[in-house]
Amino acid sequence: MRNSNRQWVLRQRPEGDISDGDLELVDAPKPEAGDGEILIRTIYLSLDPTNRIWMSDMDQYMPPVEIGDVMRGGTLGVVEQSNLDGFDVGDIVVPGLGGWQDYTVSDGTGVSKIPAGLGIPLDAFMSVLGATGMTAYFGLLEIGQPKAGETVVVSAAAGAVGSTVGQIAKIKGCRVVGIAGSDEKCKWVVDDLGFDACINYKKENVLEALRRECPNGIDVNFENVGGEILDAVLTLINDNARIPLCGLISTYNAEGDVPGPYMFRNILMKRARVEGFIIIDFLERFAEGQAEMGQWLAEGKLKYRTDIVDGLETAPKALDRLFTGENIGKLLVRVSDEPAA
Amino acid sequence: MRNSNRQWVLRQRPEGDISDGDLELVDAPKPEAGDGEILIRTIYLSLDPTNRIWMSDMDQYMPPVEIGDVMRGGTLGVVEQSNLDGFDVGDIVVPGLGGWQDYTVSDGTGVSKIPAGLGIPLDAFMSVLGATGMTAYFGLLEIGQPKAGETVVVSAAAGAVGSTVGQIAKIKGCRVVGIAGSDEKCKWVVDDLGFDACINYKKENVLEALRRECPNGIDVNFENVGGEILDAVLTLINDNARIPLCGLISTYNAEGDVPGPYMFRNILMKRARVEGFIIIDFLERFAEGQAEMGQWLAEGKLKYRTDIVDGLETAPKALDRLFTGENIGKLLVRVSDEPAA
Repeated sequence: MRNSNRQWVLRQRPEGDISDGDLELVDAPKPEAGDGEILIRTIYLSLDPTNRIWMSDMDQYMPPVEIGDVMRGGTLGVVEQSNLDGFDVGDIVVPGLGGWQDYTVSDGTGVSKIPAGLGIPLDAFMSVLGATGMTAYFGLLEIGQPKAGETVVVSAAAGAVGSTVGQIAKIKGCRVVGIAGSDEKCKWVVDDLGFDACINYKKENVLEALRRECPNGIDVNFENVGGEILDAVLTLINDNARIPLCGLISTYNAEGDVPGPYMFRNILMKRARVEGFIIIDFLERFAEGQAEMGQWLAEGKLKYRTDIVDGLETAPKALDRLFTGENIGKLLVRVSDEPAA
Repeated sequence: MRNSNRQWVLRQRPEGDISDGDLELVDAPKPEAGDGEILIRTIYLSLDPTNRIWMSDMDQYMPPVEIGDVMRGGTLGVVEQSNLDGFDVGDIVVPGLGGWQDYTVSDGTGVSKIPAGLGIPLDAFMSVLGATGMTAYFGLLEIGQPKAGETVVVSAAAGAVGSTVGQIAKIKGCRVVGIAGSDEKCKWVVDDLGFDACINYKKENVLEALRRECPNGIDVNFENVGGEILDAVLTLINDNARIPLCGLISTYNAEGDVPGPYMFRNILMKRARVEGFIIIDFLERFAEGQAEMGQWLAEGKLKYRTDIVDGLETAPKALDRLFTGENIGKLLVRVSDEPAA
């Protein structure tokens, strides 16, 4: 059992890509649970594109992480000490946002317990049944409103959110076309996840490929990427298209002003709806989404993949994988081992 | 009574601004009403920003006007011949889309009669109770969903649609800030129409002025203009802002690619909704909007202004006034005189 608390501290705001020196790994004393508190040892740390947004001092949906603060992050862990009713040592918990560190002390606010004995691997609660899975579920179904027979396009299709969105859209009877950055990713989403087609944007002109794969136009675009890919999609949207705007990862590392899509006018011409959303707006409905997604998982209708890298010390370099397009599925850092079953 | 039918025919698609030679005024024989048809003499022709869109061969919400065809336009007229049950000579009618010409022959499809004896001037049915008024009504209330106490920003505030939007928003208890292109326009919407403030974008930095006039941020932006003005608004939107996208007049004459708003990312960060709409989607609900708007007119809660130019021959030059910002209120061409009362 570790006797210190390693913490990644934000030292300066990245300019463009994250560089050495933006974050520093420091050793702090291992904290103790006080009265009415629990001490949680981090098992998994979630790495997400939005981490990069939090490092920037821009107007965003949460306050940015301040210089000198521990980097913010979603975690799952095990209770090591409990002075709080309702929590026992050994409970597996998701402490809201735990941060890039070995330990979290919490008074229980926002902490949810993972039910034991379901036979569901813990990493599912950090992916398909966690915030990313819920992002796919509520973003697609509530904002995208897909109808059977419609065409749904998903960018970052092999990512944690995109891969789930496509499968839900298939369950709902849609034609699903993914966009991803390698033949391996495209093969995975088509052969294993059941997408109808996937376009490798590094090899093909996306607009031409979309014309081929979406002969009836595009009704729903679950947008994770922005930039040229969004522009190509906007060119082909049908009347009354819905665009849940989940992410704009192509722009998060950008320096200077980034123009919006050149086909912005098609939002008007096609009477389309573009709606940004953040999964925290649906927090109160997570149980509903988890119930249906859990059912689909149990029935084998829904698959997921996690890409787990080892060691808290690897977090910044691992985060890069989201921006270079290296990873497939949900990216996690294994900070410490799962308790023996 | 005129014995020929003057028609403005599209000869070539404008490049940028409309130029001489793009449209030609030709003399055609005066048409006759056949069996089951009516002949309508045009009294008013509506000039609207969307006319410019119709001249372009781009993907849009209706087919473009073809080269050699009479230019499309909304009209109001009087029945001169009737071989159709339900229509009498002297009836005042709105024939769906009549076109830039002296006469329209119709089989009655889509033709609505203006009820006589209401004491409402005819030009109201081409403005506040016509398509422009309904655009304001349904766009603001259905898509913008303004709530009392919220801040609504309206671009092209002295235009036919914008001036009506602002008044409806005031009726609904909102703070209303207009953006217009002259002190005269700003004075009109504030002093006569009751807007809380109006920014002259030709004299002031719009972003700075919006910061001053919208101390609580922007909840609804009824967008008519696009470009830099939309960018400034997006910078200041609140969480869950709604942006009915009614027009993008700043870009209709543009040559080449036009970048979308640089603050596009705020649609994500602020979980905003941008929704394009075209008033024809609400055609079936016009009676509902006209009833409530008519009531507000009668109660003096709603004012309107028409900018009427004389003579069909002036139509192309008059259309320019929408793009140079010369006109205030609804722009109409008086093609022939109203019947004596």
